[in-house]
Amino acid sequence: MSAAYRELESRFRRLAVLRDATGMLQWDLATVMPSGGAAARAEQLAALQVVCHELLTAPALADLLARAESDSAALNPWPAANLREMRRQWTHANALDGRLVEAMSRANSESEQIWRAARPAADFAAALPALRRVLALVREAAAAKASALGVSPYDALLDEFEPGGRSAEIDRVFDDLARDLPPLRERALERQRQQPPPVRPTGPFPVAKQRALAERLMTTLGFDFDHGRLDTSLHPFCGGMPDDVRITTRYDEAEAVSALMGVLHETGHALYERGLPATWRYQPVGQARGMSLHESQSLLMEMQACRSRPFLAWLAPIMAATFGAGDPAWASDNLYRLVTQVRPDFIRVNADEVTYPSHVILRYRLEKAMVAGELEPEGLPAAWNAGMKELLGIVPPSDREGCLQDIHWYDGAWGYFPTYTLGAMTAAQLFDAACRALPDIPGALGRGDFGALRAWLKDHVHALGSSLPTPALVASASGRPLDAGVFKRHLESRYLG
Amino acid sequence: MSAAYRELESRFRRLAVLRDATGMLQWDLATVMPSGGAAARAEQLAALQVVCHELLTAPALADLLARAESDSAALNPWPAANLREMRRQWTHANALDGRLVEAMSRANSESEQIWRAARPAADFAAALPALRRVLALVREAAAAKASALGVSPYDALLDEFEPGGRSAEIDRVFDDLARDLPPLRERALERQRQQPPPVRPTGPFPVAKQRALAERLMTTLGFDFDHGRLDTSLHPFCGGMPDDVRITTRYDEAEAVSALMGVLHETGHALYERGLPATWRYQPVGQARGMSLHESQSLLMEMQACRSRPFLAWLAPIMAATFGAGDPAWASDNLYRLVTQVRPDFIRVNADEVTYPSHVILRYRLEKAMVAGELEPEGLPAAWNAGMKELLGIVPPSDREGCLQDIHWYDGAWGYFPTYTLGAMTAAQLFDAACRALPDIPGALGRGDFGALRAWLKDHVHALGSSLPTPALVASASGRPLDAGVFKRHLESRYLG
Repeated sequence: MSAAYRELESRFRRLAVLRDATGMLQWDLATVMPSGGAAARAEQLAALQVVCHELLTAPALADLLARAESDSAALNPWPAANLREMRRQWTHANALDGRLVEAMSRANSESEQIWRAARPAADFAAALPALRRVLALVREAAAAKASALGVSPYDALLDEFEPGGRSAEIDRVFDDLARDLPPLRERALERQRQQPPPVRPTGPFPVAKQRALAERLMTTLGFDFDHGRLDTSLHPFCGGMPDDVRITTRYDEAEAVSALMGVLHETGHALYERGLPATWRYQPVGQARGMSLHESQSLLMEMQACRSRPFLAWLAPIMAATFGAGDPAWASDNLYRLVTQVRPDFIRVNADEVTYPSHVILRYRLEKAMVAGELEPEGLPAAWNAGMKELLGIVPPSDREGCLQDIHWYDGAWGYFPTYTLGAMTAAQLFDAACRALPDIPGALGRGDFGALRAWLKDHVHALGSSLPTPALVASASGRPLDAGVFKRHLESRYLG
Repeated sequence: MSAAYRELESRFRRLAVLRDATGMLQWDLATVMPSGGAAARAEQLAALQVVCHELLTAPALADLLARAESDSAALNPWPAANLREMRRQWTHANALDGRLVEAMSRANSESEQIWRAARPAADFAAALPALRRVLALVREAAAAKASALGVSPYDALLDEFEPGGRSAEIDRVFDDLARDLPPLRERALERQRQQPPPVRPTGPFPVAKQRALAERLMTTLGFDFDHGRLDTSLHPFCGGMPDDVRITTRYDEAEAVSALMGVLHETGHALYERGLPATWRYQPVGQARGMSLHESQSLLMEMQACRSRPFLAWLAPIMAATFGAGDPAWASDNLYRLVTQVRPDFIRVNADEVTYPSHVILRYRLEKAMVAGELEPEGLPAAWNAGMKELLGIVPPSDREGCLQDIHWYDGAWGYFPTYTLGAMTAAQLFDAACRALPDIPGALGRGDFGALRAWLKDHVHALGSSLPTPALVASASGRPLDAGVFKRHLESRYLG
């Protein structure tokens, strides 16, 4: 191992540790920080961001990378992958000049503020000028990164969230889904209409009971409370770091099931973080692979494992014992129908797993067109509503339930949306592979035993960190490249079977 | 204002913000962090410490300071004081070379670990070799800082906690106290014996009630929960930053009064932080002046205001309403006698305000002798016990209750102890000055009204930040230089009156 490579490990270690510190401060902001601490916290986060950016743009780093790469033939696979990931982080950080980074930061903050007022007022016109400024800078950044990475502008944005992701590949699988999902949805709705509607459980559901149950189920899934916490925040998330993973949820005393499913979702994220390779802690190769794989781990737990019949048969009596033994809603079959209802909705975050991909495909197509200059923000409401009609068969009553609903574009996050559905497809394919490798997994879930599933995920996904590109990792773990096939079969089996 | 000065403000601003971030991570460690996060947190704190140290030792900083100082005649008083404080921080950071800083860090950690086992075993011999190593490095650091600051080695250590503090001055006031406190204590004990012992309240005292009462009293004192929190930790402390001040306590269901007094103590610290000048936030001159003034603010609230007869007369019915109206312990006079009991004890942290200074004077004299090479650690147990006999009239049964009781020396904190008693004296002198300026303060405390006291403290202490040296600040606020007179009169009035 060359001196240059060892020096790079030392510098990237410091970077990772400072990012962990940043993550803890973000957790604090979202969970326990008093409102009056906001301005000071913004200063702290900005200062840490500057320090991290300076570490990645230090002139010596370019030289160290070049020297280490010239020796890289001598590196074993993990250090070689580590060096590739260092180069990737360096390329992203150095592609944009400081003026553009600062302009984007300011434009995104201003636009987000305006959006927060425009959304409840359904006033797209009010949000439009700021959105135009955000998009102009996004296009500029995409062009700069495209040139540095040698890919298209949209793929350059995507690469930040989904390393190595390419829209040609996404087009292929999303077009497949866009063709097959609407008829599948209609057949699922038709079948649903032939059954009695599920009984809704009768509340209230005290927060203390919800919380105790959530902690019990987290432990069942394998969450280690010596290395993590469960807290409350407005928007649930998984934060912290592998040795101290902090997930959050929010409670509604009128509705217990969706908060619980949210906890199981975040627990899937947490298990991924916790399972990352400890020997490569603080190195780029030891970190989570990307957003689609991260989302696959949360959706695998929430959608594949925890909405399965065997697990819900195990869970149903626990729900009854917790919230009221006499409630017919807690019958196993009723609980299953409750958590697998299909209901086309205007709002993405309320969507079920059959309709969710349509929301994502719409956003992916629109943002790709906007980055490419084929669609201007002025045309967004009309394009949105036309896409909703085509993909979901419904048209929102106003832009509040339409193109104003998500923060992403207004806040500058372009190229993120496709990872949700790539994650759902990956979850289906990995769960299928795990069950083929270990056929007792469904039976074990029916006993509340996640040991075999977790061990398989740890070996085939978590412990690999960023040592492989996502497509290679998925292919290696599941025995085939990612496609929509297993996901569609999963939906057919659950919703038409 | 010169360009050099403006550049210094920018660099020290980043330093202060990163230290705030460090403070939040330390708060998290002490309050909510799961045990498994300890190693990762140590990495984060170390990385931030390195970044801060690099900011202070950057070669350009010395040049900027020299250039700004050559122009400093043109500066207004606050920027001029800011520049002085920058120089002070620079001198401390640059006096020690990296090898010594690292050796101290390692020796302190090792010694602290050994002390944690040696204390419960009363095994000073086990702690001695590590303590010798710590002291050897402390002497080396003290010599280096003495040369940089132009003061004695002990004063150089003291200066880190008590900027500008000088042992010649401390000797004068501590010798005064050491002469007068033992007879005062004996007279107080004699008077106490002539009264019936106070009735102890009957528990249990549920944590939820203690917590609600603590929050109510914090609000009474002026704590703003939009800019702070109360949490639980093993050792109570005040952390966070001026806009987000986080104090902690610990609860014992068998004993409610001491936890409450602890909260009032930490609230005094918190009000100081919160009252620092907002226009100088993140600059050295905007920060708290030093440890003795900080301790004066906590002791002023806890000892001067909240153990006064008028406040306790207001508090007693609240205690009764909270914990049981029939308990005779909550009679106002009984509560007063309960919180003003004198009881010579081997343990400093259990001491009352009459005996506490004797504990501090003992430690101050011993650490000064050890730093000067007049006492070697081998001789510490004998010197400790002789000093206890002289100052407190009691001899601990073993070193566990003797020279092993405090973490400070074993952990490398030398020159800190005198600030406790300087703080107690300052508290008495400031409270006396406030009551002379605003004679209604005692009456207001009897109505649970801290407004006038808080406003006086804000104007005369908090809002001054580090704009004046401590002696000048105390003299300006109280109309006289610090001496033991007011403190002694306070003790005589409360314990002999």
